[in-house]
Amino acid sequence: MIRLTRRYRFSASHRLHSGTLPETVNQELYGKCNNPYGHGHNYILEVTAAGPIDQNTGQAINPATLDGLVTQYVLNDVEHRNLNADLPEFKSAVPTSENLTLVIEERLRRAWMSVFPGEWPRLYKIRLHETVKNTFEWKA
Amino acid sequence: MIRLTRRYRFSASHRLHSGTLPETVNQELYGKCNNPYGHGHNYILEVTAAGPIDQNTGQAINPATLDGLVTQYVLNDVEHRNLNADLPEFKSAVPTSENLTLVIEERLRRAWMSVFPGEWPRLYKIRLHETVKNTFEWKA
Amino acid sequence: MIRLTRRYRFSASHRLHSGTLPETVNQELYGKCNNPYGHGHNYILEVTAAGPIDQNTGQAINPATLDGLVTQYVLNDVEHRNLNADLPEFKSAVPTSENLTLVIEERLRRAWMSVFPGEWPRLYKIRLHETVKNTFEWKA
Amino acid sequence: MIRLTRRYRFSASHRLHSGTLPETVNQELYGKCNNPYGHGHNYILEVTAAGPIDQNTGQAINPATLDGLVTQYVLNDVEHRNLNADLPEFKSAVPTSENLTLVIEERLRRAWMSVFPGEWPRLYKIRLHETVKNTFEWKA
Amino acid sequence: MIRLTRRYRFSASHRLHSGTLPETVNQELYGKCNNPYGHGHNYILEVTAAGPIDQNTGQAINPATLDGLVTQYVLNDVEHRNLNADLPEFKSAVPTSENLTLVIEERLRRAWMSVFPGEWPRLYKIRLHETVKNTFEWKA
Amino acid sequence: MIRLTRRYRFSASHRLHSGTLPETVNQELYGKCNNPYGHGHNYILEVTAAGPIDQNTGQAINPATLDGLVTQYVLNDVEHRNLNADLPEFKSAVPTSENLTLVIEERLRRAWMSVFPGEWPRLYKIRLHETVKNTFEWKA
Repeated sequence: MIRLTRRYRFSASHRLHSGTLPETVNQELYGKCNNPYGHGHNYILEVTAAGPIDQNTGQAINPATLDGLVTQYVLNDVEHRNLNADLPEFKSAVPTSENLTLVIEERLRRAWMSVFPGEWPRLYKIRLHETVKNTFEWKA
Repeated sequence: MIRLTRRYRFSASHRLHSGTLPETVNQELYGKCNNPYGHGHNYILEVTAAGPIDQNTGQAINPATLDGLVTQYVLNDVEHRNLNADLPEFKSAVPTSENLTLVIEERLRRAWMSVFPGEWPRLYKIRLHETVKNTFEWKA
Repeated sequence: MIRLTRRYRFSASHRLHSGTLPETVNQELYGKCNNPYGHGHNYILEVTAAGPIDQNTGQAINPATLDGLVTQYVLNDVEHRNLNADLPEFKSAVPTSENLTLVIEERLRRAWMSVFPGEWPRLYKIRLHETVKNTFEWKA
Repeated sequence: MIRLTRRYRFSASHRLHSGTLPETVNQELYGKCNNPYGHGHNYILEVTAAGPIDQNTGQAINPATLDGLVTQYVLNDVEHRNLNADLPEFKSAVPTSENLTLVIEERLRRAWMSVFPGEWPRLYKIRLHETVKNTFEWKA
Repeated sequence: MIRLTRRYRFSASHRLHSGTLPETVNQELYGKCNNPYGHGHNYILEVTAAGPIDQNTGQAINPATLDGLVTQYVLNDVEHRNLNADLPEFKSAVPTSENLTLVIEERLRRAWMSVFPGEWPRLYKIRLHETVKNTFEWKA
Repeated sequence: MIRLTRRYRFSASHRLHSGTLPETVNQELYGKCNNPYGHGHNYILEVTAAGPIDQNTGQAINPATLDGLVTQYVLNDVEHRNLNADLPEFKSAVPTSENLTLVIEERLRRAWMSVFPGEWPRLYKIRLHETVKNTFEWKA
């Protein structure tokens, strides 16, 4: 059993602001991340899959297939985008990296079976680096 | 004579769109950077000063003084900001990293004499990393 | 359930020398790390917390609160310090990064409840990079 | 209980080509990695051991002993080598990083008891970075 | 006047061996780089152009045009290739990174006028990182 | 003409304190760097040489010869050392990175002719990274 991690980059902007909280709480809670016109990041996304190695190919997963999945269901919608304005998931939810990590996980999980229909490989981990000081992780 | 470089980070958003060019040229020229709601980056800013070493202190420049200058005249206005909306320089100019590099240089040069009134240290170089693939540089 | 990692940096010096071992064993065991006047490192500290996402804030943990905790109980005592001379824990114990990792874990665990009194978030992992070649990890 | 990770680098070349698959499948499956004369990488190898801290030394593992083990059983055979031509394991198997990770694990595991005969430290994890976009991992 | 640097990555293999020198000198001179079956690297290529900023576009150079030039004249021939076998320039010359830097410079300089026919931008610098310990640079 | 840069790492400790300045000025000037028991860094040293490429070897400089020079005259005296206590140059001078850069330059320049007696290669640049935020540079 082996785990393979592929790393992707995308640049996006966002503003942290919760519609269910008063202005003063938003400012207190999110600080500069609540600035009205938003800001942005060079995100790094790591997708980890796990599975046994195929004896013929020496691979646990076809990397081109994984890249296609991540591109179609994630990168195409976040690369050079504004998370608040461009992603339907953030019409109501706050585009924190916690929430973005789960959005990515849900999108990949739902589409996973269409390209990897067998028992393996499985989606094992999602890691999202917002800056060099902040990393977020979901694990199966 | 020695050169000292201090490195700073800030996260900002922008949209590349030129008011003097038609829509189709904007889309062709800037590609995804022209997406209507903008995107963002974790910028890395490097400021290099040059000067002789003071024999008493062993320093070519007081780093706290340089940090104060950069914070007051640059970081306070770009950290967690939208370059198009929050910087007066980009009301008309396009917030490309070429232009941002020169904006930073002009701001630091104008304020330089107020904190470093002598012949040395001098502002020697400004380097701006937009992503790991893109770096911009001004040199005296 | 999500995990958030915050990254911190501090520069400190130390000397590896065990009072319970003879000189020759110290020299053999620690090599250059046993040099009499010490040496130092730019440590990178990663603190990982785990918890569910708050629906109102979109966050699993308030990062400012975590930063305050780490600053007060760890960084203030190690940043630009000599571990042997400045930390009471190393009056007797050897300031290896194994021991330093546990010292940090104990300090954070003891103070944790004062700022995070609920069931979540929990302290999940401590990672300490001594150099680019050496990493140490404690996990709950 | 603590985990220690040591990081090593080696430069090697390889060609991905499976003798059990037809040419067209090889080209489709491995793409440019199937180019006839091969290519190469600066691999980064991370070896993680786990164990309790020795109270006298403050260490969970003697790093020099671990370095010796990795050098003798891995680095000496892969550093500045061609994986297809120079490693007996790849006379038949394809030198993918999945397979290389397992080859390294098997070599270290078999030799482990000769230098660490006790219950601890144990070999806990092997991580192999092929490029900045690709990481492979085996875990005990 | 501004300088823009674009960064590219490619993975290639090579063997250092000079046909004009005896075997023993080759082994002495190149050490492990002379191993018969070759080895490889993840090269990082930095191409720097210099020029004035266009007032309409805010750019000193069209990055897509530069990328196209580098891809067509350099990356297509070195990405996942064996430098000794796949590049005509290394039929006789030794594929050291000194020589590879000049090969890249010559290829880009010869093609430059076809895509940048004006006085500006100019090719200003080529930097080639062979490993994290070795960098090579040509400057106009 | 080509430039080659070799990168080295060393871990050392120091305390910034000037014997020609009063205590209060020392504290004000150096801040935490003046802490009585010192602190330390993982320094990165870059040594750049320049010269023409030898047609037989394809090299501008023999890297093993340069490594030997840097090891003998610099690394052996700073690796895992305390700069204040272990280097004669800092008996009186303050071990700032400005001064350390010049100490390294003087040591290499004085020994240079003994291993590189010809017109080329020449010592072109010394760069010293104290932390990820601070870089110091001497240039011929």
